[in-house]
Amino acid sequence: VTQTIERDLDQARTEPRPLPPAPEVDLPETRSYRVKNRLLGPPLHTQQLEHERLGIPTALAVFSSDCISSSAYATEEILRVLIPVVGVFAFSLVLPITSALLVVLFFLILSYRETIKEYPTAGGAYMVTRDNFGLLPAQVAGVSLLTDYILTVAVSTAAGTDALTSAIPALAGYHVLIALGFIAIIAYGNLRGVKESGKLFALPTYFFIAIMLLMLVMGATKAFGGNLHPASLDTTGQVPFAHDALGAGLFFGAGLWLVLKAFASGGAAVTGVEAISNGVTAFRKPEWVNARRTLVIMGATLGTLFFGLSALATKVHPIPYVEGTPTVISQVGKAVFGGGPIGHVLFFGLQAGTMLILVLAANTSFADFPRLASFHAGDAFMPKQLTKRGHRLVFSNGILALACTAAVLIIITDARVDHLIPLYAVGVFTSFTMSQAGMAKHHIRKKEPGWRKGLFVNATGAVLSLVVDIVIIVTKFKPPGQPLGAWVILVIVPVMVFALTRLNRQYEAESKELAADVRAAAEAPVFHRHTVLLLVDELDRSAAKGIQYARSLTPDELRAVHVAIDLEKAEELMNDWLRLGLSRFPLELVDCPDRRIVRSVLEVVCEAMVDGRTEVTVLVPRRQYRRFWHRLLHDRTSEAIAKALARVPHANVTFVPYHLGGEPESPLPVREEITL
Amino acid sequence: VTQTIERDLDQARTEPRPLPPAPEVDLPETRSYRVKNRLLGPPLHTQQLEHERLGIPTALAVFSSDCISSSAYATEEILRVLIPVVGVFAFSLVLPITSALLVVLFFLILSYRETIKEYPTAGGAYMVTRDNFGLLPAQVAGVSLLTDYILTVAVSTAAGTDALTSAIPALAGYHVLIALGFIAIIAYGNLRGVKESGKLFALPTYFFIAIMLLMLVMGATKAFGGNLHPASLDTTGQVPFAHDALGAGLFFGAGLWLVLKAFASGGAAVTGVEAISNGVTAFRKPEWVNARRTLVIMGATLGTLFFGLSALATKVHPIPYVEGTPTVISQVGKAVFGGGPIGHVLFFGLQAGTMLILVLAANTSFADFPRLASFHAGDAFMPKQLTKRGHRLVFSNGILALACTAAVLIIITDARVDHLIPLYAVGVFTSFTMSQAGMAKHHIRKKEPGWRKGLFVNATGAVLSLVVDIVIIVTKFKPPGQPLGAWVILVIVPVMVFALTRLNRQYEAESKELAADVRAAAEAPVFHRHTVLLLVDELDRSAAKGIQYARSLTPDELRAVHVAIDLEKAEELMNDWLRLGLSRFPLELVDCPDRRIVRSVLEVVCEAMVDGRTEVTVLVPRRQYRRFWHRLLHDRTSEAIAKALARVPHANVTFVPYHLGGEPESPLPVREEITL
Repeated sequence: VTQTIERDLDQARTEPRPLPPAPEVDLPETRSYRVKNRLLGPPLHTQQLEHERLGIPTALAVFSSDCISSSAYATEEILRVLIPVVGVFAFSLVLPITSALLVVLFFLILSYRETIKEYPTAGGAYMVTRDNFGLLPAQVAGVSLLTDYILTVAVSTAAGTDALTSAIPALAGYHVLIALGFIAIIAYGNLRGVKESGKLFALPTYFFIAIMLLMLVMGATKAFGGNLHPASLDTTGQVPFAHDALGAGLFFGAGLWLVLKAFASGGAAVTGVEAISNGVTAFRKPEWVNARRTLVIMGATLGTLFFGLSALATKVHPIPYVEGTPTVISQVGKAVFGGGPIGHVLFFGLQAGTMLILVLAANTSFADFPRLASFHAGDAFMPKQLTKRGHRLVFSNGILALACTAAVLIIITDARVDHLIPLYAVGVFTSFTMSQAGMAKHHIRKKEPGWRKGLFVNATGAVLSLVVDIVIIVTKFKPPGQPLGAWVILVIVPVMVFALTRLNRQYEAESKELAADVRAAAEAPVFHRHTVLLLVDELDRSAAKGIQYARSLTPDELRAVHVAIDLEKAEELMNDWLRLGLSRFPLELVDCPDRRIVRSVLEVVCEAMVDGRTEVTVLVPRRQYRRFWHRLLHDRTSEAIAKALARVPHANVTFVPYHLGGEPESPLPVREEITL
Repeated sequence: VTQTIERDLDQARTEPRPLPPAPEVDLPETRSYRVKNRLLGPPLHTQQLEHERLGIPTALAVFSSDCISSSAYATEEILRVLIPVVGVFAFSLVLPITSALLVVLFFLILSYRETIKEYPTAGGAYMVTRDNFGLLPAQVAGVSLLTDYILTVAVSTAAGTDALTSAIPALAGYHVLIALGFIAIIAYGNLRGVKESGKLFALPTYFFIAIMLLMLVMGATKAFGGNLHPASLDTTGQVPFAHDALGAGLFFGAGLWLVLKAFASGGAAVTGVEAISNGVTAFRKPEWVNARRTLVIMGATLGTLFFGLSALATKVHPIPYVEGTPTVISQVGKAVFGGGPIGHVLFFGLQAGTMLILVLAANTSFADFPRLASFHAGDAFMPKQLTKRGHRLVFSNGILALACTAAVLIIITDARVDHLIPLYAVGVFTSFTMSQAGMAKHHIRKKEPGWRKGLFVNATGAVLSLVVDIVIIVTKFKPPGQPLGAWVILVIVPVMVFALTRLNRQYEAESKELAADVRAAAEAPVFHRHTVLLLVDELDRSAAKGIQYARSLTPDELRAVHVAIDLEKAEELMNDWLRLGLSRFPLELVDCPDRRIVRSVLEVVCEAMVDGRTEVTVLVPRRQYRRFWHRLLHDRTSEAIAKALARVPHANVTFVPYHLGGEPESPLPVREEITL
């Protein structure tokens, strides 16, 4: 999987010398850590980040699942727009629209060939935009891509589920659960840091390509022989999509608008093209040459499959259904492969291959999203936690965030591909536009040999992407009868970008403040005045430990404080204190008639600071109990005091522990309750 | 209400001299505290514990609601046992059984007269048993009483609900909700620390007594005039209790067993007698004389009402219903008061009075339960938290515990009095037995003048209570068709007593350990060796604050430690550190290839302690953020480290705060986020 194939800039850095090994102390592991190990496998060390180099065949399998799998639903989405309005005339329009999309694909491939050459280390939209337009535009490109990664997961798992339920209609009632199950399995695999090499990807990808090609060849043969006819529809209870309207709108709206709408729906086919540009470093040398070749092969494959399927559809006349199943591709497959036993085997093979490559496509997003999010976070535009590598070296927080948002989308849209399509592709084409425009600017800036040709290619790519983006936004702005439209993305992306810049401002302010005058602060005269307050509840061994600790300090003032709830008990404590003869260590009783101990402590601490120059250390003796229920028998005043004091500047809190039930023989914590 | 009338030993103590007032620091209040003030009223100071002295009329009202209100359901519970088996013959048995219970009541009153005289400060079963038999038997008596306080709340609110729904049958469907509502209102009132004096109690109590007496007089008049006949039953949809069986068992089981069962059910009438013995100190002087008089008046009142109602029942022939309503008392009331407008007013008055005194009875438990629980906790047999007085000086934790358990009981038993009755009275008679036996032992020990008479009275009381207790346990062990029986109490009380003694052992072990050699511990040579470790993440102002703090300490060893996740960043940090020239303060880099920072810190700390003589202080610089969402942008490693180190003996943790967003002008915390 792609995240184990390090694509980012890490390896470009010089390796610092390794540190001496950590101290060998034999601490027992906690139960929760053992459970984690069981679930996710043994921990991976940072040095174990791998840099696998890929040949073209493997690289094609690793990078193309998202792109090629689009052919599984693109034709269907085009037909879904056309058929309700123009009826069977749709089957005459599907090929021209497919061809138009292939033109777009052609220019995108050309454009990304430039990107791969110019940014051989990291050519993703975020990096290219950041390099050429700066951080803020990069956020727009990045957020657009992130939303599309989420949509890729949702669309691919939904379409994969449709492939499954087209083969086994009995499962159709559970399609939302199945889609969520796919997401859960992929997320779990990615949290484990799927170790399998690109070779594991090869099987489903090449199987899908092979069976699709087989279908195309068999279909073409049958068609030339005049043996391919509109399918005898097996409408097992499902409602054909807007069946009543078939042909009704034939004379009305078969104009530009309809064609543009269908074109926009088919735009989903061209997503995933950018994948290779993110991962050039994973290729064998010469990297950019191999990456370019792979890109062209990928484009050609997608083009062939997409065009071929659309062409077969003109003969088979498959109909998209409201429920999404049986899918168009399954109807074509059934018609081409026929009904015999071999036909059945091939049909199930087609469905299985489609399902697998779609699940792989979703998996690709699980590799890309967390990495892109970690770039944002590294630039302080997303929460820092997204840069943290987890137990198995993967960006666990990003994986969980992606799985959750995709699952929510699946639930909202009832796992229906046609409900997700209006949201899809907007982000991809936004990031295409920005990345290609960035490339155009790059050519103008650098003026390297051949820059004019490059400028022409990338400018064309940028303009084309922009046009497609506008077409998608306008035609899919609010599809009738569907819960979500392109407006959702138009709202989310700016809101997100605003939130991220706000967040960035906060991070910048913090780090600016934290970095100011560090040297002066560290070298400042130790303290103007340092007062140590020891909180005493009862005169027991826990308090004695506190007294002992306090005597090891050398402050300007040292006081013990007892907050008196019960005056009689307080007097007794004072008598015991005096009897103990701690003369340099006065005990002060503080009246607390309203029994709010925490507040009384706050008042005492703040009073000690009124001169505005005093640093206070509050020693809080804390009893540590051996068992959970022992702790329940006491209230947790010490924690409450520490929590309240945390809000007071210059109030340092020291917990002085006293461990009940005897201390272990060695100072090593042998008790098993140690958490991490 | 009774908890404001201090009945315990507090006032017997000599008042310690007051402390000087707390420092006047003007801290802003938190929002949660302001909400608390709004809900519960202004806080009460410990000195505001009041000692109201009661005359006999008020005292009767305060202490007798639990006892006298029993007359509202006792007759009904007797009939409920008899009617299904012996039919109308039941109305001949009800008076003899009532009389037998009055004999028990008579001896209990005599017995408690002795208790009041001998224990004028605190004569509750717990105190008397503890004084004469020791702590463990006192737990049995106490737990028995506690379970019965819970049952009093459940039975009284359920019966109060029945009184309401007998008057307004439309509410019958909501009876569980109404009962829970009563509990919630009473608990809320008690958390506020109902300030109203005993006078507020007088109205409902005397109103109930008056209208009951009126009913008895009118009923007797009508009966003598021959105008009182079996009620024409208005069976509005309800099913009379086991109607089909009426008379069916006449020839079968009208033996001793049946009579004992009915007697056991009626035993509930005698609960609440002990109330006065708990509160002798609240009476005007001479306390014990006034308390004794009140006790006798209370017993006479209960006897009159109970006997009178049973007598009227023999004429009116009321029938207990499965659903509990209309109640027997409401049927008698309807028959006696008749149907005219005045009759209706009187009937509704009877129902209102019954409901109010029953709610008051539940309220009495809310005064007694938390106080008794605080006695247990004070003797270290219950969690210490039960001794803590809350915002309004009441034992808030006890109030909440009682409300929750009673609510659970109401839900389990569907708020039906007859389902609760088998559980009831077992605990009361257990504690009666133990308390009277204690008194008997007291007489034998002290041999004060007249001790022989006292011994006879208390021994008789103890034996009688024991007999009644056994009768109740045996006959109510598992009532057919009811969810719970006396066996529940037989299980709960021993289990609870075992748990409390286990808990006591834990407290004793803790306090023994904590008290050992305090002087030696406090005076011990400060530390064999004291190592201070400063955790450094980045070299910023927060770390500078930590460096400054560390330099104010004088340990044997002072080290800064950086746990290195990113080796490049670590090297950079080391360079900066050396440039800062903190020569006496070495920085140590610790390799952390598995990125488990917390565990690496644990290892470093444990390594520093391997000599078994070193005390370690870990300085954790902690950034304090101004807003909640600022904090969310960072992970909370410092908290996790402190939590893990808490488990390590001799590892002291100091939080050195750095407050982001600038410090306030004065050291006083002017920011409003301060919590308590």
